[in-house]
Amino acid sequence: MYTSETFVRVRYGETDQMGYVYYGNYAMFYEVGRVEALRQLGLSYKELEDDGVMMPVLENHSKFLLPALYDDHLKIVTTIRDKPGVRIQFNYSIFNADGKLLHEGHTLLAFVDKKNGRPCRPPQRFMDVLKPYF
Amino acid sequence: MYTSETFVRVRYGETDQMGYVYYGNYAMFYEVGRVEALRQLGLSYKELEDDGVMMPVLENHSKFLLPALYDDHLKIVTTIRDKPGVRIQFNYSIFNADGKLLHEGHTLLAFVDKKNGRPCRPPQRFMDVLKPYF
Amino acid sequence: MYTSETFVRVRYGETDQMGYVYYGNYAMFYEVGRVEALRQLGLSYKELEDDGVMMPVLENHSKFLLPALYDDHLKIVTTIRDKPGVRIQFNYSIFNADGKLLHEGHTLLAFVDKKNGRPCRPPQRFMDVLKPYF
Amino acid sequence: MYTSETFVRVRYGETDQMGYVYYGNYAMFYEVGRVEALRQLGLSYKELEDDGVMMPVLENHSKFLLPALYDDHLKIVTTIRDKPGVRIQFNYSIFNADGKLLHEGHTLLAFVDKKNGRPCRPPQRFMDVLKPYF
Repeated sequence: MYTSETFVRVRYGETDQMGYVYYGNYAMFYEVGRVEALRQLGLSYKELEDDGVMMPVLENHSKFLLPALYDDHLKIVTTIRDKPGVRIQFNYSIFNADGKLLHEGHTLLAFVDKKNGRPCRPPQRFMDVLKPYF
Repeated sequence: MYTSETFVRVRYGETDQMGYVYYGNYAMFYEVGRVEALRQLGLSYKELEDDGVMMPVLENHSKFLLPALYDDHLKIVTTIRDKPGVRIQFNYSIFNADGKLLHEGHTLLAFVDKKNGRPCRPPQRFMDVLKPYF
Repeated sequence: MYTSETFVRVRYGETDQMGYVYYGNYAMFYEVGRVEALRQLGLSYKELEDDGVMMPVLENHSKFLLPALYDDHLKIVTTIRDKPGVRIQFNYSIFNADGKLLHEGHTLLAFVDKKNGRPCRPPQRFMDVLKPYF
Repeated sequence: MYTSETFVRVRYGETDQMGYVYYGNYAMFYEVGRVEALRQLGLSYKELEDDGVMMPVLENHSKFLLPALYDDHLKIVTTIRDKPGVRIQFNYSIFNADGKLLHEGHTLLAFVDKKNGRPCRPPQRFMDVLKPYF
C-alpha cells in the first residue's frame, strides 16, 4: 500500500450557490491528489504522457459526507491499495482543517499507449518505484 | 420509472489535453440531465430551492466507456427508477450522435430543508407530478 | 458586420456562493457564442482544427453589468464587426430572458497553423463565407 | 503600491485539447492571486464576506502572451497600484518556472453590502492594513 498527503485551498469559483464545493469539482481534487502522490515518489504524470503513456479514467466513485466550503484548506489523502497492472486504482479521503472527514472517493484509471490507443503495462520505472509498497 | 432525454454540445473548455471531455465535467452533464428531466415534468429545480428545499449530492458514480469529444452533440438519457423518498437517484446514459453509448452514471441526492439543513420529504407537488410513473 | 444569436441555460455548477455566475465562466459562454455564430454560417470550428488551423485567444475583455443567475436562459449576441485578417475579434452582448443586458465582452483570437505554431491567414472557405458581411 | 506573489500548479482539467490552459481558467488564477495577496496582509476574503461585504467583479481584462501548459508551476504576481475606494483594481502578471512572462491581466471589483446589494466603502480594517502601501 502506498499513501500520500497533499493540500488544496478551495477556490471561490469551485463553490456553487448552495455555498458548497460543487460536486463536480472533487474530480479535480482527486487529480491533484493522485498527481502529487506520484510526484512524491519522483514520478511525473506529465513525463509519463511525454513518454507516450496516458491514463484515462475508467470509473469514478464519490461519497459526499459533509460539504467542503469556500477557503477550506483541504487535506487529500491518496492511497494506492493494490499493485497496479494495466489498471490502477486511487482512493481518496478528504479532510478539512479541523480533521473532519468530508469526502471519500476512488478512481480507476487505465494505462494506454498514446500511439495506438490500446491498454498497456505501466512503464518499467513506474513499477520499480511502486514495487517496495506492495 | 420516469425517463427523459436532453442534449448538450461539448464545449472546447470541457476538453482536456488528451482531447477528451475531462472526467470531472460529466457531473455538469448529469446536472443538465436531471434538471431538464424535472423541467419536462413541469418541475423547476430553481423554484424548489426558492421554496426552501435544496438537493445536495450524496453519491456519484461514473463509468467512462468511450471518450466524449469536442463538439459532440451528446444525448443524455436520465432515468428515475425508484419512487423518491428523502433521497432520489438519477441514472444517466450518454450517447454520441452516432448512437454509441459513451458513458453511464448515477447520482444519489437528498432533499434538505434550507432553513435547518435537515433531510426532508420532497415537496407535495414534486411527489404528485412523479406519482404516475411509479 | 456579421451578427448571430444563441442561447445557454445557466448551470448550477456555473454559479458561485454569491449566487451569481462565477466571473470566469463567461469565457465559456463567449466560446459557445462564437462557435455557434460560425456554425450558423456553415463553418465548424472543429473542422477548422481538423484541417490544421487553431484559434488561440490573444485578448479577452469583459464588463459585468448585472449578475447572471442560476437557470437563467441567456441570449448571447455575437458580432464580428471587422473583416478578419490573421486575427479576428468577436463581440458579445448577453441578455437575460427579460431582455436586460447583463454583460458585454470581446475576444481577440489568432489563426495559427497547428504544424508550426505560426500565425496564418484564415482558410479560404472561411473568408469566402464571411465575405458578404464586410 | 502593494505587490504579492503566489503559486499555482496547472491541473490537467484546466487544459484544453489545444494542450494549453483554457483561456477561461485564468480568472480562477487571478482569484487565487488576489485572495492570497490579501491573506499575506492578514486579510481574509472569507471573513470579509462573513462580515457582510462581498466583492463582485465589474471588469476583467486579459492578454495571453504565451500558453501556460499542463503541470506548469506558475508564479502569479498580484499588484494593487492605487488606493482602493468603493472599487479596487488588481493587476496580475503570470510567469512560468523559467521566469517567462506568459500572461497579463487586471480585474476591477466593487465592495458591495450583502444586505442591500449597494456599493459600499471597504471595511475600516481593510483600509488600515493597506494604508501604508499608498
